[in-house]
Amino acid sequence: MSERFAQLPQPPYYAVIFPSQRTPGDQGYGAMAQRMTELASEQPGFLGIESARDTTGFGITVSYWSSLEAIAAWREHAEHQVAQETGKRQWYEHYEIRIAKVGRSFGLSGPGADPANSKPD
Amino acid sequence: MSERFAQLPQPPYYAVIFPSQRTPGDQGYGAMAQRMTELASEQPGFLGIESARDTTGFGITVSYWSSLEAIAAWREHAEHQVAQETGKRQWYEHYEIRIAKVGRSFGLSGPGADPANSKPD
Repeated sequence: MSERFAQLPQPPYYAVIFPSQRTPGDQGYGAMAQRMTELASEQPGFLGIESARDTTGFGITVSYWSSLEAIAAWREHAEHQVAQETGKRQWYEHYEIRIAKVGRSFGLSGPGADPANSKPD
Repeated sequence: MSERFAQLPQPPYYAVIFPSQRTPGDQGYGAMAQRMTELASEQPGFLGIESARDTTGFGITVSYWSSLEAIAAWREHAEHQVAQETGKRQWYEHYEIRIAKVGRSFGLSGPGADPANSKPD
């Protein structure tokens, strides 16, 4: 399985769904995004992150957390706040943030495998 | 705002978070994906869909629904079931499906705009 997939515990846990449209050009975005992923992964309650951006600059990042309190603390983190402000001014044409509670998950690896159901919520 | 973003009501609603790694080559995937998006959008309870896939074949699709029942009905839809089976056999190296309840959302449009908070859940 690719390292692109978050290795998560059984639900319940929380997800921050973050679709975004980038402005043209890098403008320091790549380095910031890498730093924020590293920094997020050091925060209490961080469980994992998944991210994909296509060639039009539209991307979706989903980060996973153990609690709403962990999400709130990450949002208030000083270095993350600087990145958020620069994001609003410079890096994003538009974004949405949706905070959700994951109650059920299942997956598939390799041809012919059956999805393994976890406990429904 | 880009049409890439789902136009959603105020929370609560439900999200199906679907990260996936494609196998190499198209193999009919593009046409199926377009058809499934069209078909999903005709289903009762469908609210919207967002999707991004990068050049490595890793992608994230998030579809939004008014209820868990609507998600279950779409999962059981006959034509969708055929696509799911072909997906397991042919299109995906790996995928995960996480079903979540969105309780809060906010967004930003354009430089300098402030996020407009919706009612917290």
